[in-house]
Amino acid sequence: RETVCIFGTGDFGRALGQKMIQSGYPIVFGSRSPQTSNLIPKEAEVLSHTEAAQKAAIIIIAIQRQHYDFLTPLAEILRGKVLVDVSNNLKINQYPESNAEYLAQLVPGAKVVKAFNTVSAWALQSGTLDASRQVFVCGDDMEAKQMVMDIVRALGLTPLDQGSLLAAQEIENYPLQLFPMWKFPIFLSLGLTAFFFFYCLIRDVIYSYVYENKDYSFFIAISIPNRICPVVALILLALVYLPGVLAAIIQLYRGTKYSRFPDWLDKWMLCRKQLGLVALAFAFLHVFYTLIIPIRYYVRWRTEDGIISKALNNKTDPFNNTNGWLSDSYLALGILGFFFFVLLGITSLPSVSNSVNWREFRFVQSKLGYLTLILCTAHTLVYGGNRFLSPSSYRWYLPNAYMLSLIIPFIVLILKFVLIFPCLDRQLTQIRQGWE
Amino acid sequence: RETVCIFGTGDFGRALGQKMIQSGYPIVFGSRSPQTSNLIPKEAEVLSHTEAAQKAAIIIIAIQRQHYDFLTPLAEILRGKVLVDVSNNLKINQYPESNAEYLAQLVPGAKVVKAFNTVSAWALQSGTLDASRQVFVCGDDMEAKQMVMDIVRALGLTPLDQGSLLAAQEIENYPLQLFPMWKFPIFLSLGLTAFFFFYCLIRDVIYSYVYENKDYSFFIAISIPNRICPVVALILLALVYLPGVLAAIIQLYRGTKYSRFPDWLDKWMLCRKQLGLVALAFAFLHVFYTLIIPIRYYVRWRTEDGIISKALNNKTDPFNNTNGWLSDSYLALGILGFFFFVLLGITSLPSVSNSVNWREFRFVQSKLGYLTLILCTAHTLVYGGNRFLSPSSYRWYLPNAYMLSLIIPFIVLILKFVLIFPCLDRQLTQIRQGWE
Amino acid sequence: RETVCIFGTGDFGRALGQKMIQSGYPIVFGSRSPQTSNLIPKEAEVLSHTEAAQKAAIIIIAIQRQHYDFLTPLAEILRGKVLVDVSNNLKINQYPESNAEYLAQLVPGAKVVKAFNTVSAWALQSGTLDASRQVFVCGDDMEAKQMVMDIVRALGLTPLDQGSLLAAQEIENYPLQLFPMWKFPIFLSLGLTAFFFFYCLIRDVIYSYVYENKDYSFFIAISIPNRICPVVALILLALVYLPGVLAAIIQLYRGTKYSRFPDWLDKWMLCRKQLGLVALAFAFLHVFYTLIIPIRYYVRWRTEDGIISKALNNKTDPFNNTNGWLSDSYLALGILGFFFFVLLGITSLPSVSNSVNWREFRFVQSKLGYLTLILCTAHTLVYGGNRFLSPSSYRWYLPNAYMLSLIIPFIVLILKFVLIFPCLDRQLTQIRQGWE
Ligand SMILES: Cc1cc2nc3c(=O)[nH]c(=O)nc-3n(C[C@H](O)[C@H](O)[C@H](O)COP(=O)(O)OP(=O)(O)OC[C@H]3O[C@@H](n4cnc5c(N)ncnc54)[C@H](O)[C@@H]3O)c2cc1C
Ligand SMILES: Cc1cc2nc3c(=O)[nH]c(=O)nc-3n(C[C@H](O)[C@H](O)[C@H](O)COP(=O)(O)OP(=O)(O)OC[C@H]3O[C@@H](n4cnc5c(N)ncnc54)[C@H](O)[C@@H]3O)c2cc1C
Ligand SMILES: Cc1cc2nc3c(=O)[nH]c(=O)nc-3n(C[C@H](O)[C@H](O)[C@H](O)COP(=O)(O)OP(=O)(O)OC[C@H]3O[C@@H](n4cnc5c(N)ncnc54)[C@H](O)[C@@H]3O)c2cc1C
Ligand SMILES: NC(=O)c1ccc[n+]([C@@H]2O[C@H](COP(=O)([O-])OP(=O)(O)OC[C@H]3O[C@@H](n4cnc5c(N)ncnc54)[C@H](OP(=O)(O)O)[C@@H]3O)[C@@H](O)[C@H]2O)c1
Ligand SMILES: NC(=O)c1ccc[n+]([C@@H]2O[C@H](COP(=O)([O-])OP(=O)(O)OC[C@H]3O[C@@H](n4cnc5c(N)ncnc54)[C@H](OP(=O)(O)O)[C@@H]3O)[C@@H](O)[C@H]2O)c1
Ligand SMILES: NC(=O)c1ccc[n+]([C@@H]2O[C@H](COP(=O)([O-])OP(=O)(O)OC[C@H]3O[C@@H](n4cnc5c(N)ncnc54)[C@H](OP(=O)(O)O)[C@@H]3O)[C@@H](O)[C@H]2O)c1
Ligand SMILES: CCCCCCCCCCCCCCCC(=O)OC[C@H](COP(=O)(O)O)OC(=O)CCCCCCCCCCCCCCC
Ligand SMILES: CCCCCCCCCCCCCCCC(=O)OC[C@H](COP(=O)(O)O)OC(=O)CCCCCCCCCCCCCCC
Ligand SMILES: CCCCCCCCCCCCCCCC(=O)OC[C@H](COP(=O)(O)O)OC(=O)CCCCCCCCCCCCCCC
Ligand code: HEM
Ligand code: HEM
Ligand code: HEM
Repeated sequence: RETVCIFGTGDFGRALGQKMIQSGYPIVFGSRSPQTSNLIPKEAEVLSHTEAAQKAAIIIIAIQRQHYDFLTPLAEILRGKVLVDVSNNLKINQYPESNAEYLAQLVPGAKVVKAFNTVSAWALQSGTLDASRQVFVCGDDMEAKQMVMDIVRALGLTPLDQGSLLAAQEIENYPLQLFPMWKFPIFLSLGLTAFFFFYCLIRDVIYSYVYENKDYSFFIAISIPNRICPVVALILLALVYLPGVLAAIIQLYRGTKYSRFPDWLDKWMLCRKQLGLVALAFAFLHVFYTLIIPIRYYVRWRTEDGIISKALNNKTDPFNNTNGWLSDSYLALGILGFFFFVLLGITSLPSVSNSVNWREFRFVQSKLGYLTLILCTAHTLVYGGNRFLSPSSYRWYLPNAYMLSLIIPFIVLILKFVLIFPCLDRQLTQIRQGWE
Repeated sequence: RETVCIFGTGDFGRALGQKMIQSGYPIVFGSRSPQTSNLIPKEAEVLSHTEAAQKAAIIIIAIQRQHYDFLTPLAEILRGKVLVDVSNNLKINQYPESNAEYLAQLVPGAKVVKAFNTVSAWALQSGTLDASRQVFVCGDDMEAKQMVMDIVRALGLTPLDQGSLLAAQEIENYPLQLFPMWKFPIFLSLGLTAFFFFYCLIRDVIYSYVYENKDYSFFIAISIPNRICPVVALILLALVYLPGVLAAIIQLYRGTKYSRFPDWLDKWMLCRKQLGLVALAFAFLHVFYTLIIPIRYYVRWRTEDGIISKALNNKTDPFNNTNGWLSDSYLALGILGFFFFVLLGITSLPSVSNSVNWREFRFVQSKLGYLTLILCTAHTLVYGGNRFLSPSSYRWYLPNAYMLSLIIPFIVLILKFVLIFPCLDRQLTQIRQGWE
Repeated sequence: RETVCIFGTGDFGRALGQKMIQSGYPIVFGSRSPQTSNLIPKEAEVLSHTEAAQKAAIIIIAIQRQHYDFLTPLAEILRGKVLVDVSNNLKINQYPESNAEYLAQLVPGAKVVKAFNTVSAWALQSGTLDASRQVFVCGDDMEAKQMVMDIVRALGLTPLDQGSLLAAQEIENYPLQLFPMWKFPIFLSLGLTAFFFFYCLIRDVIYSYVYENKDYSFFIAISIPNRICPVVALILLALVYLPGVLAAIIQLYRGTKYSRFPDWLDKWMLCRKQLGLVALAFAFLHVFYTLIIPIRYYVRWRTEDGIISKALNNKTDPFNNTNGWLSDSYLALGILGFFFFVLLGITSLPSVSNSVNWREFRFVQSKLGYLTLILCTAHTLVYGGNRFLSPSSYRWYLPNAYMLSLIIPFIVLILKFVLIFPCLDRQLTQIRQGWE
């Protein structure tokens, strides 16, 4: 294999050098102070920048952007060489031009390729490449890019060609991003959480305090979260399936699939996965909050108190069959809903979704997804049961939280129900025809 | 990069074009109506079919099969070109010959390659390639196939060479399949579910109704499912390990590993993963049905009723140490069994199984798998405990469901126990020697 | 494609041959007894070793090492050919030199490449490549290695170049390893488990037996495991975050990042992932042991007994608001802690961690990791609550197990708290600067 030169004996330079040596590349370092320290892999030579550059056709610049100016005097030596820019910034769009483009301006005769910036020195060194193994590569010179991509592949990483050097800006921003697709779903869910928190606080704690002078402030720990979580989960789940229905209506109305959806709908449709997973997280919390109900001191005390007072009053309730049915049904519906919910989550795992075909993926996500929505809605409905119309459910004219949570699921399910009517369905299929 | 031509400006053509432009390919569309609409990526040219075809060596035919006949007049221009067939059908084996072969017949001078049919237009366009990134490629011309595979790789997808154009039929059927490996395990489990449903219905609901005139119909919601699920889970789990034991017996009997297993055994062994995962799903349901037991109205009522009547009768039961042991043991065994069950499930995730070596995978799947089976069987046994021989367990001569569920696990465990006897084990190892 | 020759018609030879034929390679087998049996793929020719070798440039030696000597007479014919060694051993470092090096010595004129030894014949044959798809390749001849890597790729597997033939020893050891990174975490956790088992046995069973003459031996099934598991989980979780803190202190003290950490610290930091996952497993057990508390016979009996005796004594406890708060808070903290714990586990899945960038991965693992630690510590603290100082918590001067478990978490959290003080944090950032 051809010798590769690395400028800079810092963390990244050393880590990359070590790894490349393991893969059989002869390495020569270019450094301001060319003494071999004991940290530098001993198979590598350390030379001055000029000497090192002359030994190789590819030079990896493992130095921060702000020091790049030391390269200008070397421009003549670097002419025709492949310069690999690996640098990152501290902020998104920190400089007007990307580091790679800046490097290309500084050394006009060289072929600049952007690569490796998403890989961490620590990960390279310790071999625990836990975060992404994808290496985005871009550059204007096709051949230079190929040479770099071959190195990437030899290191056991996956190169992804992103096109011309213009893409460097985006590649440099990538490692600074923090879950961009998750922002909207998370903020939405936090907003809903805050709203329902105050809603339930008023209904369950303040109301009792005002009218019954009872201090239920400890409801804040479990009882109220266990209202908020399922309610938010159900709403988010419905919001996952609402855009699909809206899209169908728009297509029916326009009579064609060959026109763009409104922007907000496009964005919404692209974050359905994240919305769904956040919903799953809330459902998970709901389930565990529910399962520990019998362990709570308050619940145990209330049970005990109820039994003792009944025993003392010599009173026993007869078994109510309807209640038996209702209680068991809503629990069973919840469990089944949660089961399919988790199944949706499992098929969202990249490695699972990657090993099913498109039809299977859509079968799970669309068919089982609606089944999940139906089960969860039914669970809430049956839980509400006969309490719906009872006036005691309204405190200060505020209905129960779960009644509010049912609105969007109902809208989605009714619209979907209308859309699967043969006449509409046929028309829709016709419009979408061509879609395999 | 070389210009690529795409025939058809429909959903798929546009989506693929867009993606290829991003990866640096110049694109030219061939269309019946060559006006650039605002949906077509503006970097692409739109020409008539003839003009477009002349500009490129590779032509992607993004048009449904039924319209392919428009290509016959173009045969001369397409001579020597690489034609990429991306089409899908609506039904498995819809036509006698595959679309790609049909295309090859229509344009005899061209080199036809099948590719991209498993990728969805929507996924390409929105960038959410959730379902498979694998692109199956086949074709009779080696070089043409290589050219297409390079494009596939450049788009960040994984090409998989499936051989000659004969494989096109299978590739076209692939996206129409719906979990083929899961069919047998799912039908089997549904069959078992139905059987045990009626079995328990008779034993638990109808029997009580007939003899005690009590209406336990609400048992259908939770109590009966919580009998069916664990029983089916245990049976399926045992069925996962039965074929391995049978295979060993066959090999011992034949004295060689160099002969095929009977067909049914081969098939059975290939769907053990799916059987195991379905078993896990049933176990999951059993666990959650069990965990909500104390929340059920019926259970709370029964507890309350029991306590009150005892209090009124001034009667207290002394603590029974054996019962304490039995109850705690079967629960602990169940939890441990479930734990290893989930562990088996986690190592089945493609990305996890992909990062362990074969010995580790088999250690988990085979050793821990048997441990799971032992724990789950012991859990059921201890749960049954002293009820086994009590006549009250037999209603209408029907034993408890869990007794039936123990039969296959026992067979498997006993056979396995015999097989690990040194004499047999040594012989078996000898036969299988060579197996790394 | 070029013809490939396979020596040996055993399990592995046949399976590989079959797979290669499917991928379009003409195959010729070299065998001691060249009759085509019905097990050998019928598209393949079976010849004598000499004849077969002459037909191909690549020869795969699918024969055990101990039979390699039959190759010496063939040395002349094998001159210049690529010999692929696929063999495995039964023990780590079984022979002084690796099988591939031994082969190279036997047939000096050939170019030996090590490959395929991690793939199982059964997996190749049945198509269920569940364990690793990575094929490690090494060899001294670059071109020969490339040829083999092309075959690997054509079979849908991932070749990983490991360098020169010296690496063969390591490659041959790889499939014999059994979770090397997991050894330390698992032994540590088993050690802790044993310690706390006896600790709790003394405190909870023997103490009661000695002083109250009560037989609580059945606590061994659930009560004691449900003390051990959370305690071990918490300690392991804290041990995950301790090395990071120590590393920071060392760097602060040394004033530079350019010097190696002590060896034990390096090793510790590399098994944090495994430590964390083992901790998750223990937490999982704790949660399920906790959730079945209300189902236990002992707990039901105790509740019942308590209620009846209160009812008989006509005594009711008033509701204690502080207890309500404490009980609900510690449960809520536990649930939240477990939630983030599972989240950490999910992001450890190779496919998930592979699709996030480094910043996102560290955000989850470091920020949410500390949040998990804080929540779990708080959960334990609040659970302990006012029992901390009560003398009844000390039996034979032994404090409660959870008090011991809090020591390391406290150390970690306090050190971390000190380290995020602006003055220290700034200094540390400066030292680590350059770290992207
Ligand atoms: C726990 C959980 C996990 C989830 N994980 C994922 C995930 O991993 N990935 C994911 O994508 N979603 C995920 N989701 C979201 C959701 O399940 C899917 O988006 C699901 O496919 C939506 O189904 P649908 O039937 O509403 O929409 P679709 O069937 O997609 O239809 C919606 C509309 O989009 C339009 N449309 C879609 N495709 C095309 C096309 N090719 N051509 C023209 N129009 C088209 C149609 O107009 C259609 O009406 C998840 C949800 C949950 C709850
Ligand atoms: C939750 C769960 C998940 C599971 N996930 C998976 C999964 O992801 N992948 C999977 O494969 N299974 C999976 N299984 C099924 C099961 O765990 C495995 O198939 C397991 O390896 C079976 O172990 P065994 O010891 O019975 O069989 P094996 O050890 O495979 O032996 C069975 C018989 O097959 C024959 N045999 C096997 N290999 C060879 C060989 N190379 N040469 C000759 N004969 C051979 C032998 O005759 C042997 O007696 C799962 C099971 C469960 C419960
Ligand atoms: C359930 C669970 C799952 C886990 N899964 C994983 C996993 O999949 N992968 C994984 O790695 N860990 C995993 N962990 C372990 C743990 O979460 C991580 O290691 C985490 O990043 C540690 O964070 P930290 O802030 O303590 O350490 P770090 O932020 O890594 O810092 C520790 C010290 O290391 C040094 N350091 C780190 N990087 C550099 C660098 N580039 N240059 C110089 N010095 C550096 C610094 O001196 C720093 O003080 C898991 C833990 C749990 C509980
Ligand atoms: N560390 C990572 O995880 C990581 C990940 C991806 C990308 N990167 C990028 O890699 C580059 C290097 O990062 P690093 O972490 O290795 O940084 P570092 O440890 O600080 O090393 C930087 C090296 O650059 C050289 N250098 C410093 N000042 C210089 C100057 N004025 N003129 C010439 N050379 C100078 C020094 O090498 P000599 O003393 O030998 O001259 C120094 O060791 C950065 O652009 C960074 O964004 C780093
Ligand atoms: N959509 C997917 O998700 C997907 C996935 C995999 C494979 N495919 C395959 O890709 C192909 C195209 O699918 P699509 O979804 O893009 O379909 P589409 O949206 O209906 O587009 C088909 C295109 O074919 C052209 N066309 C239609 N009738 C024609 C005729 N009589 N003669 C010549 N050209 C004609 C039209 O382009 P002009 O108007 O420009 O001529 C039209 O836009 C199909 O074979 C499909 O199976 C699609
Ligand atoms: N099986 C696996 O899962 C697996 C996985 C990775 C690597 N490997 C490696 O592949 C190699 C073969 O394994 P295997 O499982 O195929 O073994 P196998 O089934 O026992 O077959 C070995 C073959 O070697 C030939 N052979 C045996 N003795 C010989 C001798 N004295 N002289 C010449 N040839 C002889 C025989 O073929 P003929 O009768 O045709 O001469 C025999 O079929 C081993 O090195 C093994 O480590 C196997
Ligand atoms: C989290 C604890 C509760 C368990 C269930 C909630 C999980 C939902 C939250 C998932 C968050 C994943 C963060 C991914 C980070 C990321 O950006 O990840 C990005 C990746 C890849 O995204 P792209 O493919 O879009 O680039 O997304 C994912 O991989 C999603 C992973 C989904 C995981 C769902 C797993 C559910 C498994 C079920 C477990 C337990 C059930 C419990 C039963 C009792
Ligand atoms: C499902 C909810 C309950 C959770 C446990 C049951 C899961 C079992 C069912 C898995 C179904 C996966 C569908 C895969 C579709 C497919 O064909 O997928 C195909 C793929 C790949 O198959 P091939 O590699 O054979 O092609 O198979 C898989 O990926 C299997 C995934 C296994 C996932 C198991 C995950 C278990 C994790 C444990 C989570 C929760 C535990 C809860 C604790 C309280
Ligand atoms: C196990 C049952 C309990 C569930 C939680 C505990 C799981 C922790 C143990 C994981 C063991 C994984 C063995 C991996 C073998 C291996 O070496 O695997 C090696 C791989 C890859 O390692 P490298 O990348 O380091 O090579 O490691 C992994 O893949 C780790 C997988 C982590 C899986 C965590 C999944 C948690 C999902 C949450 C599920 C359930 C929550 C339940 C909610 C109620
Ligand atoms: C294992 C699965 C489940 C169980 C055991 C379960 C159980 C319960 C219980 C016991 C309640 C009543 C809570 C109370 O009394 O305050 C409840 C309410 C509710 N559940 Fe579930 N549930 C499950 C899953 C789900 C899922 C997946 C959803 C949907 C997202 C959901 C949505 C709701 C809603 C909206 C309420 C009403 C909340 C309120 O206002 O009190 N549940 N569930
Ligand atoms: C967390 C783990 C588990 C717990 C807490 C648990 C608990 C229980 C309980 C309480 C019962 C009695 C149910 C009743 O009274 O009707 C039971 C029964 C049973 N369990 Fe489990 N279990 C667990 C896991 C498993 C697993 C993994 C299996 C195996 C597949 C299993 C198989 C069975 C069987 C076969 C029965 C008898 C069913 C019947 O006929 O009633 N359990 N379990
Ligand atoms: C769903 C989540 C959780 C719930 C419901 C929960 C519940 C409980 C309960 C009820 C106890 C008292 C046990 C007893 O009375 O013996 C307890 C103790 C404890 N928990 Fe958790 N817990 C959860 C998660 C966690 C997690 C994630 C950790 C941390 C690793 C943890 C650490 C502890 C510790 C150290 C104790 C004290 C054990 C002892 O000495 O008794 N818990 N938890």
